[in-house]
Amino acid sequence: MSSFPSTLLSGYRNFMSGRYVDQRERYRVLAEQGQKPHTLVVACCDSRAAPEMIFDADPGELFVVRNVANMVPPYEPDGQYHSTSAALEFAVQALRVRDIIVMGHGRCGGIRAALDPNAEPLSPGDFIGKWMNLVAPAAEQIQGNSVMTAVERQTALERISIRNSISNLRTFPCVKILEERGKLRIHGAWFDISNGELWLMDPQTRDFVRLDGQDG
Amino acid sequence: MSSFPSTLLSGYRNFMSGRYVDQRERYRVLAEQGQKPHTLVVACCDSRAAPEMIFDADPGELFVVRNVANMVPPYEPDGQYHSTSAALEFAVQALRVRDIIVMGHGRCGGIRAALDPNAEPLSPGDFIGKWMNLVAPAAEQIQGNSVMTAVERQTALERISIRNSISNLRTFPCVKILEERGKLRIHGAWFDISNGELWLMDPQTRDFVRLDGQDG
Amino acid sequence: MSSFPSTLLSGYRNFMSGRYVDQRERYRVLAEQGQKPHTLVVACCDSRAAPEMIFDADPGELFVVRNVANMVPPYEPDGQYHSTSAALEFAVQALRVRDIIVMGHGRCGGIRAALDPNAEPLSPGDFIGKWMNLVAPAAEQIQGNSVMTAVERQTALERISIRNSISNLRTFPCVKILEERGKLRIHGAWFDISNGELWLMDPQTRDFVRLDGQDG
Amino acid sequence: MSSFPSTLLSGYRNFMSGRYVDQRERYRVLAEQGQKPHTLVVACCDSRAAPEMIFDADPGELFVVRNVANMVPPYEPDGQYHSTSAALEFAVQALRVRDIIVMGHGRCGGIRAALDPNAEPLSPGDFIGKWMNLVAPAAEQIQGNSVMTAVERQTALERISIRNSISNLRTFPCVKILEERGKLRIHGAWFDISNGELWLMDPQTRDFVRLDGQDG
Repeated sequence: MSSFPSTLLSGYRNFMSGRYVDQRERYRVLAEQGQKPHTLVVACCDSRAAPEMIFDADPGELFVVRNVANMVPPYEPDGQYHSTSAALEFAVQALRVRDIIVMGHGRCGGIRAALDPNAEPLSPGDFIGKWMNLVAPAAEQIQGNSVMTAVERQTALERISIRNSISNLRTFPCVKILEERGKLRIHGAWFDISNGELWLMDPQTRDFVRLDGQDG
Repeated sequence: MSSFPSTLLSGYRNFMSGRYVDQRERYRVLAEQGQKPHTLVVACCDSRAAPEMIFDADPGELFVVRNVANMVPPYEPDGQYHSTSAALEFAVQALRVRDIIVMGHGRCGGIRAALDPNAEPLSPGDFIGKWMNLVAPAAEQIQGNSVMTAVERQTALERISIRNSISNLRTFPCVKILEERGKLRIHGAWFDISNGELWLMDPQTRDFVRLDGQDG
Repeated sequence: MSSFPSTLLSGYRNFMSGRYVDQRERYRVLAEQGQKPHTLVVACCDSRAAPEMIFDADPGELFVVRNVANMVPPYEPDGQYHSTSAALEFAVQALRVRDIIVMGHGRCGGIRAALDPNAEPLSPGDFIGKWMNLVAPAAEQIQGNSVMTAVERQTALERISIRNSISNLRTFPCVKILEERGKLRIHGAWFDISNGELWLMDPQTRDFVRLDGQDG
Repeated sequence: MSSFPSTLLSGYRNFMSGRYVDQRERYRVLAEQGQKPHTLVVACCDSRAAPEMIFDADPGELFVVRNVANMVPPYEPDGQYHSTSAALEFAVQALRVRDIIVMGHGRCGGIRAALDPNAEPLSPGDFIGKWMNLVAPAAEQIQGNSVMTAVERQTALERISIRNSISNLRTFPCVKILEERGKLRIHGAWFDISNGELWLMDPQTRDFVRLDGQDG
């Protein structure tokens, strides 16, 4: 046990003497009664894009799936195991969340890899390559664009991918049905890790619009 | 945009006027230089088990994969997309993390489902069922035990599953090789959401031992 | 007499010049009026698990039966002599104790023997083997589990055995009747000799829950 | 858990903040390395006659069997379960204790019951009756004595019973053999609960001689 990262042990002690003390009762009730998170967030693994930090969430609020580039694959009931699909099914059917947020962010490494024509597989399994294929058609189009800058292409694909994932969410029958009945709402968001800005997707136009930190 | 959950908008404003102000410079540097998280954490989607909270982590510290029941599937380079495998590959090969923590927790809904002999599929796709099959052999053994209480079986399987996932991690050649070379360390942890206790897996015995919040 | 263990003679002198001096009057009264212990404790012979130490008890408080693995056999009025049954009968019917505690502990040698598939009889009489048969059905189930660690199996059986013994207590008509009338309460406890932790059995769920040394 | 006797919870807290703090390291080592008690004590359940108190023993020192009237039955390898025989076998063959002490005491309730011609069974099972039959021949003789006082008869039988139990110890082949080889020593002791006096049995004459508290 002496090899467990000491920074994390320190962090855990800070948690126990700080935040946990304030929320001890809340944790106890959550343990006894079970979790009733109101929102499913699909976020990126990126260390700079943790939803709990960005939304200053309390324990029990957010059911969070995190994968590379915050993607939702299309509905494929093929008998194979699908991690993100399982989490989605659990959140929607068991926990009955009311909102799903697909949250992307700037400088996403997965998106960068998808846009890199010279990208080599990171290992023979090339799992990142196969995973990022979920956004391949759009990535190809963007890749071929010679008049946008690299950052513009990056940001464009990050947002296109969020829209893709939202479309994929709607291929899940349980999502589609609950959304149509007004019991589930789907949102897109994009977090600029360089300056903390949050951009929300307009449900009609599907454009990303910056949320002003003071108003909203 | 009026439909974006207002509690999350409030939370975001708290973040921007609180924590973000303290860490503004850090976010800027992280954006410019890229992330160098030291640790990959495989955690559960559960709203009560967020690693950043439990380890009081700063942005840039933890690369976090979250799926139901914090599982790592075995290495299967079959050309299909595998979300957790992709995140693992990215963390180990691209980001060169030094530590991987598989962190489970008490009252895990996925584990409870795996132990429920009467569990019905949550949807025709039965994604949770297929996903939890990753721990099916152990679940069957534990399910068959008539002398342990339900909580004892639950806790046992939560910890067995962490050990399983750690074994699966070692089926990834990049993980195995780096671990053998001393460049990567693997850890197991189990968080008791009812009282904040953290239990760490002893690497030799594979038993979970409670970390005393005060010492360490 | 020179062969009487000298450490014990020293200990006796410490007792007589220390604790006994403080409690001289108490011993005198207890001798005159007889003992009225409020609680029967069924504990293990183990040198690390003495109830008087763990509960900082005074003389006269606890009526203590100690046998290997703190077990209570089922009610068998077969005319044979039964040491634990005799002690139980005396405590309940003659001394009228109000509480019975079955207290187990970690690293119990009897439980370890029960889980050891290669255990050889310690002597031709194999008294330990026959005695530990009291927990054989559960021991077999636990022994057959290949996914729990040795320590997990040990701890599981220690607690199952306490529950077993509590069930056996209730096969004694005098116990059953008095409990139903609210005149006798039965408790389970498990002492972790490695760190002093005390776990109490929840009477409803029968789970063992750690008592925090500070609160209660 | 709220029904666990509160005096015992207080006692446990005293233990944890007092004695346990002093002996924390000792408990840890005993847990890790196992127990190596040097002595087996056969004592009475009586709340006034706890060996650890009387000998001011530390954890790890004494392996203690406690039954009504601190008796050792004769060796009977009949396939039935025998609690005191099992403890004896474990102490001698597994733990390799060097000394066995049979410790009786004054005002013993079991001995009083054995001497009471009008004693009614405490329950239909009459476990005390059957258990005290172990000393029945001597009890009959003493009972029939009309010239000793009740206290003299009581004390006499308490000591005779200790001698009986010591003889019974020697019917166990493992005890007999080890004693003959000088690897095991057997002692008798009798504790006067009214004044703290300890009387030790002279191995030759088998008389009980008072140990002077100061010398010895």
